[in-house]
Amino acid sequence: MKIWVLAGLPAVMMLGCGQPKPDIKAEGEKVMQTSRDWAKVTATGDVEKIVNYWTDDAVLMEPGRPTLSGKKEIRQMVEGSFKIPGFKITWEPQSVQVSSDGDMAYLIEKTQVTMNDSTGKANTQHYNGVTVWRKQPDGSWKDAVDIASN
Amino acid sequence: MKIWVLAGLPAVMMLGCGQPKPDIKAEGEKVMQTSRDWAKVTATGDVEKIVNYWTDDAVLMEPGRPTLSGKKEIRQMVEGSFKIPGFKITWEPQSVQVSSDGDMAYLIEKTQVTMNDSTGKANTQHYNGVTVWRKQPDGSWKDAVDIASN
Repeated sequence: MKIWVLAGLPAVMMLGCGQPKPDIKAEGEKVMQTSRDWAKVTATGDVEKIVNYWTDDAVLMEPGRPTLSGKKEIRQMVEGSFKIPGFKITWEPQSVQVSSDGDMAYLIEKTQVTMNDSTGKANTQHYNGVTVWRKQPDGSWKDAVDIASN
Repeated sequence: MKIWVLAGLPAVMMLGCGQPKPDIKAEGEKVMQTSRDWAKVTATGDVEKIVNYWTDDAVLMEPGRPTLSGKKEIRQMVEGSFKIPGFKITWEPQSVQVSSDGDMAYLIEKTQVTMNDSTGKANTQHYNGVTVWRKQPDGSWKDAVDIASN
């Protein structure tokens, strides 16, 4: 009986701990790749697909604009942006950190925004950014906080 | 024997899981309070105490300035700021989110920076900010990412 109890320990421990320990490195790469995929989707101008990368309660802070809270306000901003002549936005994640349980992460990012100036000439601005991500029940990652500084 | 095994289960489960589940609400309040304490310490101008709230590898992004990485660059910036006539900075955390294991958190903050303009008159600027915090081995929280947007 004692041997049976000992042999049963690992299974009991896994049961007690719920999920297995996450692969932090793999999750970090997944967040980086999600950000890159998002930039590609953004280049297509598909508003619904773009907005879907944010959590429902996401907060967005951009220089010179009031803080946007929630998907409705963010969708309006995205739609409005694509109406600006010459508007283009792209970014590249620079680094990632994931919490030890693999359910929260942040990226340091570099962002470029291009739009036409009053003479119709393309003007590109560069921003530093931080995005904070939360893992979703289906294993995907969504952006909960989005802040850019110029 | 069976009863003994069942009675022993909770202890085995705790052993298997390492640390007990963190109190996310309490940790969140602790991060908020650390941010408030930091603002108070900052008002005293004690550079070493101020700098100690950042992690060694902290990243700081402020509008119109290059990204600062690590404590040395951040300390220089703090020292330089206190030499600016009329310089004052304060902030208030607005909300907190903590990862489920209680080792990463982020705050949404509102920051005010005051300095004298060229006529010697106090001029206050308002910023939105995000800080990302990592729990330290001693249970304290330190700021790993600090970004402000105007």
